[in-house]
Order: sequence, then structure tokens, then C-alpha cells
Amino acid sequence: MNTRFYNAKILTLDENDKFDIIAGELWVKGNEIIYLGDGSDVSNVCTGDEIIVWDIEKDCYGNLLMPGFKNAHTHTPMTFLRSYADDLPLQRWLNESIFPREAKLQEEESYWLYILGVMEYLTSGITSNFDMYFYQGMNAKAAVDVGFRSVFTSGLNNFSESLERVEEDYLRTTEMDDLVSYIIGFHAEYTTSKELMEGIAGLAQKYKSPVYTHNSETALEVKECIDRWGMTPTALTDSLGMYEYGGGGYHVVHMSDEDFEIFKKRGLYAVTNPGSNTKLASGIAPIKRYLDEGIPLALGTDGPASNNCLDMFREMFLMTGLAKLRENDAAVVDAENVLLAATAGGARAMGIEDCDRLAVGKKADIIMIDLQQPNMQPENHILKNIVYSGSKQNVAMTMVDGKILYERGVYNIGFDPKEIYAKANSIIRRIDGQM
Amino acid sequence: MNTRFYNAKILTLDENDKFDIIAGELWVKGNEIIYLGDGSDVSNVCTGDEIIVWDIEKDCYGNLLMPGFKNAHTHTPMTFLRSYADDLPLQRWLNESIFPREAKLQEEESYWLYILGVMEYLTSGITSNFDMYFYQGMNAKAAVDVGFRSVFTSGLNNFSESLERVEEDYLRTTEMDDLVSYIIGFHAEYTTSKELMEGIAGLAQKYKSPVYTHNSETALEVKECIDRWGMTPTALTDSLGMYEYGGGGYHVVHMSDEDFEIFKKRGLYAVTNPGSNTKLASGIAPIKRYLDEGIPLALGTDGPASNNCLDMFREMFLMTGLAKLRENDAAVVDAENVLLAATAGGARAMGIEDCDRLAVGKKADIIMIDLQQPNMQPENHILKNIVYSGSKQNVAMTMVDGKILYERGVYNIGFDPKEIYAKANSIIRRIDGQM
Repeated sequence: MNTRFYNAKILTLDENDKFDIIAGELWVKGNEIIYLGDGSDVSNVCTGDEIIVWDIEKDCYGNLLMPGFKNAHTHTPMTFLRSYADDLPLQRWLNESIFPREAKLQEEESYWLYILGVMEYLTSGITSNFDMYFYQGMNAKAAVDVGFRSVFTSGLNNFSESLERVEEDYLRTTEMDDLVSYIIGFHAEYTTSKELMEGIAGLAQKYKSPVYTHNSETALEVKECIDRWGMTPTALTDSLGMYEYGGGGYHVVHMSDEDFEIFKKRGLYAVTNPGSNTKLASGIAPIKRYLDEGIPLALGTDGPASNNCLDMFREMFLMTGLAKLRENDAAVVDAENVLLAATAGGARAMGIEDCDRLAVGKKADIIMIDLQQPNMQPENHILKNIVYSGSKQNVAMTMVDGKILYERGVYNIGFDPKEIYAKANSIIRRIDGQM
Repeated sequence: MNTRFYNAKILTLDENDKFDIIAGELWVKGNEIIYLGDGSDVSNVCTGDEIIVWDIEKDCYGNLLMPGFKNAHTHTPMTFLRSYADDLPLQRWLNESIFPREAKLQEEESYWLYILGVMEYLTSGITSNFDMYFYQGMNAKAAVDVGFRSVFTSGLNNFSESLERVEEDYLRTTEMDDLVSYIIGFHAEYTTSKELMEGIAGLAQKYKSPVYTHNSETALEVKECIDRWGMTPTALTDSLGMYEYGGGGYHVVHMSDEDFEIFKKRGLYAVTNPGSNTKLASGIAPIKRYLDEGIPLALGTDGPASNNCLDMFREMFLMTGLAKLRENDAAVVDAENVLLAATAGGARAMGIEDCDRLAVGKKADIIMIDLQQPNMQPENHILKNIVYSGSKQNVAMTMVDGKILYERGVYNIGFDPKEIYAKANSIIRRIDGQM
């Protein structure tokens, strides 16, 4: 499938990670961007033996093409628990509502719940996710079936999965399809024995993989880790040799000076999840300090049970807004830093650098932002409009790997949305019936 | 224009301010709701001399009808300054970017900027706004021309307008059209002399009007008021006799025990603006305490220069989420309290109780929420879905005063959106050219 976009504004990113917007054309051949420019040098692309046949020629009417958002931390199949138990203290939420229902979830059900999450990603301009949940193999099958790009990690802990299963998932997923990949990980220090964590470090070294885990999400978690081990979660996992090939932490809200040093030394990514941290009252991550220290940032929604939506526009506003509140300074964490974390930062954290920006040779994970909406007008500053004022309503198109999967409310994923909604409702009703 | 909605879910509110959702029909005759129920008692409405001719019969396909959101504090024409100067310290933002450009705004330009804001309100399911800005007469004309419901107040201060102008605006607007009304107000203690504030109190008493003003938005503002007058802004304005007929404060972030007592004693409304307070680093309002003390709440976006979008879904998430962060408790300020503030609370604060809920005899300010979107599925809890997961993408229709002004991306306001965008861009470009 070859697609020519014309009359577009195009968001570019240079080698110094500075954004720019140019006017022109963008060409996709198969799943790759083969031209991006003002159109004046088009003959350089067309010459030679090959004549490109366009399957789609799309007038963008001056709207903006940009790289898709990378949702760098989520638990996609938890869609079945959306709005299930809100406005509850965290421990009651987990123990009374979430854990007992998760225990009743069946593997084949995860397939439908994953697709429901992907549909929401598409409406939010998300073109890939970094996913931790049970039934990873089934979830990868769902991603491939609908044509979505997913990077998986393990939620290994003392109560589910095993080191053998992690290795098996890693090997199977790595071989499965270009759309899916796998990075070694585990759930969190507070749910995982030292033996398992040492095993994870061993797997990471064996396969030269980064390692990701929930890290310092709550103050209590950090305190209890120090009580147990005399070290923070960051220092403990580092001492176990986990980060020889990098990696990072999800949430990373409550960090010590030493933790920042370890993140810098190891080149770890801070994956921030402000919506979840807000709704669960976990605290505000120190985004300004990550930027000041040069620690790379990525942005994620967390799962739909704790957020409850999968909306990168909300996350972007929160990432900068909460930092402003935390530092008592309206000038900190500007929109460009946020947009970088939401796009290229996420791609790099997830090991999909070939999707990090729009440029020749990069994969065609592209969204179109509708600027002809009142929240994007006047066009005083398009980047700031997107970060501070953008909304799912502005996502006119989402293309993954060269294929348009969503366009103005219509999905091209091989399933009728009604079927997916019916499945999701029947799954949670079945589980409720057994409670 | 008479409209019959069928196959609907309908959000109702009882006399104890408890929400419920029923399945059935809702009928609008002219600008009034004349029937709401499951359809089994329809003959009771149809009998008699009158046979209703439906101009529109709308199958709702199981989607939700609910009262439109009330945006209880905003400065609508500031659309021209959207994203103009973000990520700046507050004083530089005001003095270098905002004030000099506002000074160059012409009265007739305000008309187009107001309509641009109304368009965004319609996309967000907002059916009325409580507006403070220059050129109130022009703004009221814009509201009436497009069929939108607006309640105005004055931004009187030492540098603009006068007591005579406030009285003139009050009288003209009150007589102008049922869609527009006026409540006495002024900009803020820190911009307004005691003489002017005393004049405002006099006008409020003369016309038996509530009074609204920016109140305790920042800690500095409160400190400087105490330095000047030995009293907080709330205590000072109360001591001047402003609240004999009620009223309230916008923002109300930094409140003393005495301030809470005054709000209770006078029945004042706390109008919270969490998006603006976040982006401008003003602080987090004490929403839990307002609820605990029984002080009524309303919710607003503030103006598009400080937010930057006009999106009640974002505000609803922030209202509860920020309260959870502030109190370090995920259980505080539940979704129902937020939805009440965003609908009936706002209507009452704005003196438009006839639009506060969907019920027979109430005005037809109605929106339809599309539940057939992935962020609303599964339907575990529709109210919580709306507050925690809702987005502009879910606004399928916005009806004001019995007239559908917006439906799935199409406006029915008498203007082509492109014309409005072109006007807004040319206005800010003209002003920039004179800087």
C-alpha cells in the first residue's frame, strides 16, 4: 500500500531534538516514509526505474502530519475494569475489586479486551504501546491481527508467571512479527522475590535486553523497600545487575538523589504516568529535575482501570501542568519537552527508534491532527495548541506501519466496533456473575 | 421547533441531587422539555386538543441524553490569545504578552472571537457560560446571534469600565433576550479600588443581584490583600456588603477558616477552575473541604489564554484528580459530585436554574453523549466513564434552548467555521502587526 499525503503541514524533529513544521508532501511506500519535503524536489524521488503507483492520494487540507504518540506504559486488557471501582482507597481498590476479577479473566478474553484498548489508542493518535499484562502471547496475536505496533514486557511477580515463561514470551514474540517486540521486565520490587529479580537480571544479560518495572510509584512502596533491603527500588534493582543494557522505570514519582544518579549513569528512561498518579493520589513526578539532569523521558497512560482513559492529550497536559504545580512555577517543562516525551522519547524507551520521527527511511507510524477545529484556532503556536489544547477530537487519521487503521471515527481493523463492545461487556458480566 | 428523542438513556437528577439513568424518550416543544419517561405513559402527553408535530425525530441508539455542561467561569473572547504565551512566569505572561494585546483589541473583533469560543463550547457539550470580558454588549449580541445561552458579569477594575457602564450593561442585557442575562461583578480586589468595590455593593443591593469576582486565586493575591486591608479578599468584599443576595468567587484556591465561614453564611458558590490553576501554577483548590462544609460548587474552564482549551471533560477529571492529590486520598471528591458541579451547580451559580437538569418544564439545554466509543466501554458505570474517561469525541449533539447547534462535527450557528477561523487569525495578526 503506497500513500501520498499532500497539502500537509509536517512536524519534523532534527538531530538536536528540535521540532519544526514544514509545508509539503509526505510519501509512504509500503510501511516506510520515502519522501518528505516541500514537493519541489519530487523528481529526485520519482526518477529511475521505479514509478510509484499510489493506492491513496490524500489531500491534507493544511492539517498536520506528525509521528504517532507512543504510549510508553499501559496494561491494555484492563479495559474490562474501566470505571469499575473508582473513588476508593488504593488498597481496597486493588484487593476488593481489581485482583479478584483479574483472577477470573480467561486467556482468550484478553484478545478482545486488548483490541478494545487498541481502538481507543487509535482515536487518541497512539500508534504503539508498551504493554505489561497477563496472557502476553494472546495480546501479541491481537496486536498483529489488527495491525497495531506493540512492545511487550513481563508482569512477572511472585503470584503469576515464571522466569521460564518470560524467556518463552521473549523468544516467541521476538520471532513473531515485525509489529511486536519484547523487552525484559517484571511487575515491581514489592511483589517480586529477590530470586526472581536476580533471574530477570540474568535474562536481561543473556539477551542484552533493557529492563523495565514499576518503580517508586508511591511513597509507601519506597519506604517498605528501604525497610526490607536498606535500599530504594532503583538502587536495589541496579545492585542486582539489571541495567547493563539500559531500561527504565514506570511512574518514578518518589526518587532519591542516588536514584537520579543511577538513572543518569545507566541511561535509564523515566516513564511518567501523570493521569494514573493523579487519580490514585500517588504524587507528582519530578519532571523538571529529570529534564535538568538530562534523564530521558517517556509518557504513558497506565492501564484503563487506574486512569481511566487512554488519552495522550490528557497525559501531555498533565505532564507539564502537574510539574508547574509541583515547582510552583508556570514556566517549567515547556510544551516541546512534553511532545518529545510523547513521541520520540517513548519510541526510544520502547526500542522502536525507527518510529521516533517523520523522516525518510523511518516507519510510517503517522497521525493527522485536524487543525480546523475551534480548539486549534487561531494558529498562534501549533505545538502549544496540541499540548495544551489538543483532544481526541483532533485526531483525523492514525496510520500504523503504512496502513490507515482509523480515520475520522471509522476503524479499519477487521472487526466491527459493536462486536468488540459486546465482547467486553459480556466478559465483565460473566466475571461479575461468578463473584 | 419540536424534537422527539427516542431509544435514549436519560440522565436525571432528583430533589436530593442524586443522579439516575433511565431508558426512554425525551420530548422538546419549542425550547422546553415537555416529556421525559419510559414511553409507556406517552398517551398522557398526547391527549387533549393538541397534536404535536415533530420537526425532528431522533433515534438515540441507546446513547445518553444529559443536561449541557455549564462553564461557570470564562473569558470567551480571549480565544485570540490562545497558546500565545505559554510556559512563562505569570507576571511576564500578563505584562509582556496579554495586557498589551488586549489593549489593542477592537470592539467589533470581540464578536468573532466570542463565536470562536462558543464553537468550542458546543464541541465540549457546554450549553452556557458565565463570561467576564470587555465589550460585553458585543459579546451578548454574538451569543444571541448564534443561539447560545450566556450569563455575563463585569470585569470592572481601575483601568477599564465604570460603575455607570456596569449598570448600563446590566439593564441592557437583562432586557435584551431570554438567552442572555447579567450578574453584578468586578475583576478582583487587587485591581479595583475600595470606592469601586463599594459602588459594586451598592449596585448589587439596588438590583438584588449576587456578586462574583476573582477571589483568592493565588497566595500572593491573598497576602497582598491582607497587607492592604488587614483582611482576606473574601472578608473584605463581605465587609463591603456585597453578598446580601449571594454570589461567589472564581478560583477560590487559598482560603482561610473565616473565608469558609463567610461562604457558608452567605450561601456563596465556589467556582473552581482547575485547568487554569494548574497551568498557571496557582495551586489546588480545597474541593473536599467545600464539599464537607456544604458549600455549593460550580466548575469552569477560565479563559482560553490561561488553560488553553475550553473542555469540561478535562476540567472534570482535574477537579477530582487534583483533590485526590491534595488530600493524598484516592477516595475523595467522587464522580457524582463533579458531575453535579459541572451541570446543576453551575446553573444555580449562574442564576439559570431552569437549565439545571432534564425534567418536564425545564429549558431544553441538552447534550447527547456517544457511548458507542471505546473510551466509554464497557458500560460498567456510565457516570464514572463520563467524568474519568469522557472526551470531546463523545459529544454527539449539543442543543441550546431547544435548537440543535452542533451535531457530530457540524455547526448550525449561521456561520461557516472557516469564516470564523479566518477572522480570529486576522485579528491576532493585525494586533501583532501593531506591536
